[in-house]
Amino acid sequence: MDKINVGILGATGSVGQKLIELLQDHAWFKIAEVGASETSAGKLYSYAATWAMNSAMPDDVANLTVKKCAPDFDSKIIFSALDASVAGEIELEFAKAGYKVISNARNFRFDPKVPLIIPEVNPGHINLIREQNFEDGFIITNPNCSTIGLVLALKPLEDQFGIESINVTTLQAISGAGFSGLTSLDVMDNVIPYIKGEEEKLEREPLKILGSLADGKIDFAGINISAQCNRISITDGHTECVQIKFREKPSREDVIHAWNSFIADPQEMMLPSAPRRPVVYFDDPYSPQPRKHRDLGGGMTVAVGRLRDCPIFDYKFTITSHNTVRGAAGGTILIAELLEAKGFLTG
Amino acid sequence: MDKINVGILGATGSVGQKLIELLQDHAWFKIAEVGASETSAGKLYSYAATWAMNSAMPDDVANLTVKKCAPDFDSKIIFSALDASVAGEIELEFAKAGYKVISNARNFRFDPKVPLIIPEVNPGHINLIREQNFEDGFIITNPNCSTIGLVLALKPLEDQFGIESINVTTLQAISGAGFSGLTSLDVMDNVIPYIKGEEEKLEREPLKILGSLADGKIDFAGINISAQCNRISITDGHTECVQIKFREKPSREDVIHAWNSFIADPQEMMLPSAPRRPVVYFDDPYSPQPRKHRDLGGGMTVAVGRLRDCPIFDYKFTITSHNTVRGAAGGTILIAELLEAKGFLTG
Amino acid sequence: MDKINVGILGATGSVGQKLIELLQDHAWFKIAEVGASETSAGKLYSYAATWAMNSAMPDDVANLTVKKCAPDFDSKIIFSALDASVAGEIELEFAKAGYKVISNARNFRFDPKVPLIIPEVNPGHINLIREQNFEDGFIITNPNCSTIGLVLALKPLEDQFGIESINVTTLQAISGAGFSGLTSLDVMDNVIPYIKGEEEKLEREPLKILGSLADGKIDFAGINISAQCNRISITDGHTECVQIKFREKPSREDVIHAWNSFIADPQEMMLPSAPRRPVVYFDDPYSPQPRKHRDLGGGMTVAVGRLRDCPIFDYKFTITSHNTVRGAAGGTILIAELLEAKGFLTG
Amino acid sequence: MDKINVGILGATGSVGQKLIELLQDHAWFKIAEVGASETSAGKLYSYAATWAMNSAMPDDVANLTVKKCAPDFDSKIIFSALDASVAGEIELEFAKAGYKVISNARNFRFDPKVPLIIPEVNPGHINLIREQNFEDGFIITNPNCSTIGLVLALKPLEDQFGIESINVTTLQAISGAGFSGLTSLDVMDNVIPYIKGEEEKLEREPLKILGSLADGKIDFAGINISAQCNRISITDGHTECVQIKFREKPSREDVIHAWNSFIADPQEMMLPSAPRRPVVYFDDPYSPQPRKHRDLGGGMTVAVGRLRDCPIFDYKFTITSHNTVRGAAGGTILIAELLEAKGFLTG
Repeated sequence: MDKINVGILGATGSVGQKLIELLQDHAWFKIAEVGASETSAGKLYSYAATWAMNSAMPDDVANLTVKKCAPDFDSKIIFSALDASVAGEIELEFAKAGYKVISNARNFRFDPKVPLIIPEVNPGHINLIREQNFEDGFIITNPNCSTIGLVLALKPLEDQFGIESINVTTLQAISGAGFSGLTSLDVMDNVIPYIKGEEEKLEREPLKILGSLADGKIDFAGINISAQCNRISITDGHTECVQIKFREKPSREDVIHAWNSFIADPQEMMLPSAPRRPVVYFDDPYSPQPRKHRDLGGGMTVAVGRLRDCPIFDYKFTITSHNTVRGAAGGTILIAELLEAKGFLTG
Repeated sequence: MDKINVGILGATGSVGQKLIELLQDHAWFKIAEVGASETSAGKLYSYAATWAMNSAMPDDVANLTVKKCAPDFDSKIIFSALDASVAGEIELEFAKAGYKVISNARNFRFDPKVPLIIPEVNPGHINLIREQNFEDGFIITNPNCSTIGLVLALKPLEDQFGIESINVTTLQAISGAGFSGLTSLDVMDNVIPYIKGEEEKLEREPLKILGSLADGKIDFAGINISAQCNRISITDGHTECVQIKFREKPSREDVIHAWNSFIADPQEMMLPSAPRRPVVYFDDPYSPQPRKHRDLGGGMTVAVGRLRDCPIFDYKFTITSHNTVRGAAGGTILIAELLEAKGFLTG
Repeated sequence: MDKINVGILGATGSVGQKLIELLQDHAWFKIAEVGASETSAGKLYSYAATWAMNSAMPDDVANLTVKKCAPDFDSKIIFSALDASVAGEIELEFAKAGYKVISNARNFRFDPKVPLIIPEVNPGHINLIREQNFEDGFIITNPNCSTIGLVLALKPLEDQFGIESINVTTLQAISGAGFSGLTSLDVMDNVIPYIKGEEEKLEREPLKILGSLADGKIDFAGINISAQCNRISITDGHTECVQIKFREKPSREDVIHAWNSFIADPQEMMLPSAPRRPVVYFDDPYSPQPRKHRDLGGGMTVAVGRLRDCPIFDYKFTITSHNTVRGAAGGTILIAELLEAKGFLTG
Repeated sequence: MDKINVGILGATGSVGQKLIELLQDHAWFKIAEVGASETSAGKLYSYAATWAMNSAMPDDVANLTVKKCAPDFDSKIIFSALDASVAGEIELEFAKAGYKVISNARNFRFDPKVPLIIPEVNPGHINLIREQNFEDGFIITNPNCSTIGLVLALKPLEDQFGIESINVTTLQAISGAGFSGLTSLDVMDNVIPYIKGEEEKLEREPLKILGSLADGKIDFAGINISAQCNRISITDGHTECVQIKFREKPSREDVIHAWNSFIADPQEMMLPSAPRRPVVYFDDPYSPQPRKHRDLGGGMTVAVGRLRDCPIFDYKFTITSHNTVRGAAGGTILIAELLEAKGFLTG
């Protein structure tokens, strides 16, 4: 089978580079075009990008000439890793011109006609694109990095027991800040107790993702969420300390079983980037740890541990997930795989 | 005035060394004797201790011969930095033998006759020592490092508005783990989501400290506390993400004013180690930060910031305090100063 | 083909764990027995070991019962990851009893009858074991972590141009210190300018490895080496800043070509753990970097960069290599593969 | 005595902020004016600067209105913390207009009429300003951060024994890179083996500083220097691994005595920022360490340790110095103090 050509917008940035790294040797997709800002356009990708991934830059991408982010790409399937400051306008242009845009930017996440997707959580929401008024094109979005890990852990619990409220404090890695987000001096031997816009995303995005689609619109979930977000001195892997109040408190064993037995469409359809298990619970009280568990399932699995009673909520627990794989580039690719498997891309 | 001779038990450990560093050139106290384990006893302190403080080992302490931790010290005032595994027995022996023991260990913190003191918070609780059945001796204790920062920030709020519940997630420095608590590989580029016994201390100690003393016993405060404790890769300074529910919600301005105007006995009595202000609120959303604020007030001030509404509790805020100064050695010294000023030591 | 059973001595320590991790799914070898100290003996490995690797403990090893390190193993091939304090006596006992011991400990490295092997550098030295007076058993040793990376980079230069002197300053990762070597407080936000015994190893081991074997003894290489060794705050990957004086100075191009074209027995025999290229030169002035390059070639390749003229020596350059893979466990396994391929194990 | 008004150019950058922090409560100087780029000019300093120091921004500076960097300052004494990209032109304008400019920028360091000063090393070189063709103004420069620590340690050795060659490998802190020099992801869990222009500075600046002034020009010292420079993950404090070849090898005791007995003009004149001892040797093999020793002498003392024989040079040793205090802002202030004490400023 011929691979499907895709284009990447924002290809020189940190999420763009991670997409290139993860799409190298992908079973279904092949990077045929890369787009970036005017200053990069016209240059070879190897010159335009300051490559910051640990693996080597793939040769075939290195030799692509960077294009402007204008809708004259040959590839009809577009991964957008654009910065939010420009993503809104450019993604819209592409969608209008018939491109199928899978975006990692925040701009359209709360557009009533745009799905906000975690493939294991709300695969059915992709049908919302039918409400979009573009002929062949559409926009579909990937949630924020700290949202994805959290909601993957919440999904089986919401389904089986019903969640009333969630309280979460994050310890987030610096790779989530992008290349120029923080200087090395800021975060070294330090904690930064504020990440602009992050708490708002973490309090609101789960409600859309866990909501239900009916009559062409999403009814948001009725969960009360409070979030506190911190940046700490760690390369990769977000840790989230979570408290949960259920509609009816299940046993500890039932909660753990819900996590460990959770599988969904991506697992059943054996999508190339789907981990065998999206959520794994560890009994050891010193787990999860970001350095130990961030690469679990190729960086696509959420590690959970320390489930224990809470004097205020029902339970406390801790999760760790890879913020640039599951939480960004890998999550976007899994959405594309889901779309292809369900016939929305080339079908 | 002649300085008051004091002895230090557990003088070679990390809290012991910090006590020595902070008592150097102290206005009132002079280290006359140091005690440690049998393997150290009989050696010069400079040989027995693997000095890990950033300042140089004080010459006069370097030349002291380490004694066994037996109650034959000449100094009647004893700072105990002993490990909990031995502190219980030894401190009791000293108290029985007429020594006034100010302890940093956890062993007697919940003994009904032993005060658990933060000098700005519950100075009156020192009267509880009158209930102890030793002739001249007594035991008085300093709380856990993460407790002290938190309760200092809570005290003016409890006094003025009444607290119903507290939810707290900590990001704790490695210096709190003692010299041998963690290997460097454990915590580097990592988060350890579990600190043995820490959550229990943080949920329980504030209730005694904020309780009221009447008829020779302490009535614990009726506050519901839930804690989650993490070790992160930072040298010094604990950060705590706090949520608070009041009996009646005050305005944001009133809360900030309560912190910034808070002073207590140590400030009014101008104790040598008392900071001018025990709590300082910072308006900048990126504050507090442990590297920037841990040395505030000589490491004795708690920095607070990010007060904002909470969808679940009334408010969220973040605090940072120096875990080995205010949270351990400095806190112990301030208790001794309070005792002396109130006539309990040499009065 | 049936896999070859091997035993691991010192299986609960950091090198032992890395051996277990790397031998998981090995093409030729299967861990059949694990040995450790008396306190661990008799327990299941999963209980005896505090597993510190990032990947999960392999199930089959988890269920092995830990044995004492006495020569009653069924497996005749033994990997020793013992601490130097006990390795000497135990390894000798095993060799006398007919076991083929491949050791990572330093004890026998300078025994005149014991080969000190880097498979790409001095594969022929394995014949030195014929001088050992054990019937079937022998001892063969793996060099120190900082030696291996350096000598791999030196070998093609010594062969082609002849080396007169080497000056090297190291920046070494903490994983090389073993689990209990350093506390996290020591090295965080710090440099430790001294590693006991390390400079001596780095100045002396290369001379034996690059020496020539004739008449049953090794004639040490006549290179003058000076080393300075530092521990820095990094998880994995040793960086070495090297200066070299040749017998006759080659061109920069010739040096780079010597590195990039270097292959040896392990590559030609396609040993399972052999990297495609043992040494790779990077042109980018910001290379090599330990985080980016330590996993090159599965952690078995040495990354080199920054070759430039030196005002004192002929050239300066920088190398990075993975200290626990190529520099310890992986290096040991590659020796075993070389031995098997040359008929010294089961042949 | 009234304090002397000074102006600071580049006041919002990292060196500018450190100058402001160190000049707070200075015995002789008072910051009367601050200059920065056009985008900052006209704003209050508290708004224009993103304050990154650990101590609080001084109130009096916070309320200064930032000026453009044009020579219309009232203060005749100017500290320049300008970036090299603009320092050349601006400093020249100020000097021509009669300002006395003490610069931390590299632009004029090798101008034959501009002194490059470390007050303890070459105080007499300040007379070189007499060769400058400005009426009242002049330019005087402070060396690079890694140069200053090294040359302070070399000066007493050069004076007493004569140095033939120096080989140095640095492990430099990130604070030396300025606020935007490195992203936090670059350096975390990593080493960057290249700092643009740094090795050239370190090989060349010492020759001018250790040179001799005669007939209005400096005769460079005849020392052969080779440098290798690395950036590591540490907040403050440069470590330098040094090898030295003397004209005639002195004993180890003589070298250590030369360091420990070294004092110079700043100590004899008791300049406010002069440390009691510019160089201190530590016997402990684990010293010097940047976290432990960077604040020695208020950050103005160089810590030295590990003096030992070298197989290639005469000796090896390690030094640590505070890169933003002695190596930048503090060094600049000490030059100004020297100038004032010698009558070059207000005399």
